[in-house]
Amino acid sequence: MTYCVAAAASTGIVFASDSRTNAGTAEVASHSKMTVFEAPGERVVVLLSAGNLATSQSVITLLEERRREFMAKPTFFHAVEAVGETLREVLARDAAALAKSHIDAEASFIVGGQARGEPPRLFMVYPQGNFIEASRESPLLQLGETNYAKPLLEVALGFNSALDDAAKCLLLAMAVTMRLNVAVAAPVDLLAYEKDQLRVTRRRRFEQDDAYLAQLSGLWPRAMNELCGRAPAVAFP
Amino acid sequence: MTYCVAAAASTGIVFASDSRTNAGTAEVASHSKMTVFEAPGERVVVLLSAGNLATSQSVITLLEERRREFMAKPTFFHAVEAVGETLREVLARDAAALAKSHIDAEASFIVGGQARGEPPRLFMVYPQGNFIEASRESPLLQLGETNYAKPLLEVALGFNSALDDAAKCLLLAMAVTMRLNVAVAAPVDLLAYEKDQLRVTRRRRFEQDDAYLAQLSGLWPRAMNELCGRAPAVAFP
Repeated sequence: MTYCVAAAASTGIVFASDSRTNAGTAEVASHSKMTVFEAPGERVVVLLSAGNLATSQSVITLLEERRREFMAKPTFFHAVEAVGETLREVLARDAAALAKSHIDAEASFIVGGQARGEPPRLFMVYPQGNFIEASRESPLLQLGETNYAKPLLEVALGFNSALDDAAKCLLLAMAVTMRLNVAVAAPVDLLAYEKDQLRVTRRRRFEQDDAYLAQLSGLWPRAMNELCGRAPAVAFP
Repeated sequence: MTYCVAAAASTGIVFASDSRTNAGTAEVASHSKMTVFEAPGERVVVLLSAGNLATSQSVITLLEERRREFMAKPTFFHAVEAVGETLREVLARDAAALAKSHIDAEASFIVGGQARGEPPRLFMVYPQGNFIEASRESPLLQLGETNYAKPLLEVALGFNSALDDAAKCLLLAMAVTMRLNVAVAAPVDLLAYEKDQLRVTRRRRFEQDDAYLAQLSGLWPRAMNELCGRAPAVAFP
């Protein structure tokens, strides 16, 4: 399983991803699901990936091989289009062979960042290679184990959230998801892209034993118990 | 969609269910998903149902027709077995015809209560008619839209929760689920069965405009915002 989440805000975009990959319970490994393409002063493209690891690694590798072309796309939109096209290319290579073994080759991506001369943009590339963009009204994009964080994110996060608050909120979302699904696990990658910086200034990796992550995780049961304590008793007729 | 939840506690069992049924967005209706069989002083059997409404209604109707036999099963376990058998009987009648139209005939049930001479018991009957029992370690059973409430229930509810606290907690779970999935909706049925009463003493229906339910729903964003406010800021290197 995977949990990737990104939130667009008026002052930038925050990204968070876990690192657990597995093929059954006996084959568990860690791979970062966050990839950053950076041409300082020109363009930042952050990718979060979910789905079949062989597929997503091939897509990332091909984009890295074609880095010059990829980063020279006329707009951010066309860079996202290139991610979708590369995904289709890898699926054209692998999907039929995997289907014979009933293995799903699908992968999907969150792609966000900024190209000089444009506002920051944030997209979700579907397994079919088409894509949608986040907006002021729907600033949140998620991949993988997306349900457990929704009760938090849907009420606590908005386009007008400060970037620091959005970063905290996404880490809380990651902490509660890790608590409920053992297939979502640290290291956790966090990147807060500041609008118009056109370079990565705030990025951090949290290892499994990170004290801050443990602190956030511990805030959750406290909040839930307070909530239950605060609720008035049910009156039965 | 549906949300049904039941929690076993040392002092009884609490049940909650929504009432939204739908076949597409244009055919939306309300049906209670809670059915109570009561032989005061002898036995209480509470059923919560999810899945295909035609299937679950047929199962309930057949059990009501055979009420005398159903309530005379030698133990609570055998009553649950009868629910599974009746489900198989209805599926044997309907499933093949529905499959031709690619309609899923499946239904599932939470069945709990108490028979005189036994402790309270709580079971989940799967669509195949087999079943599992809740326990001290795993006191919670859910059907339908089960994800959104987990972040609350997994930390705030346990076998040793007082019956009143468990009732509040399940209603909070219902409130947050209704907030996130419009296909889960009031009226909400709540029943708190008190151990060894062998009759229903505490049951309440909450209509869509219920003030208490609205109050619980309003506590959620407050709790989430306090949680985010309390989390210390992320330190970037």
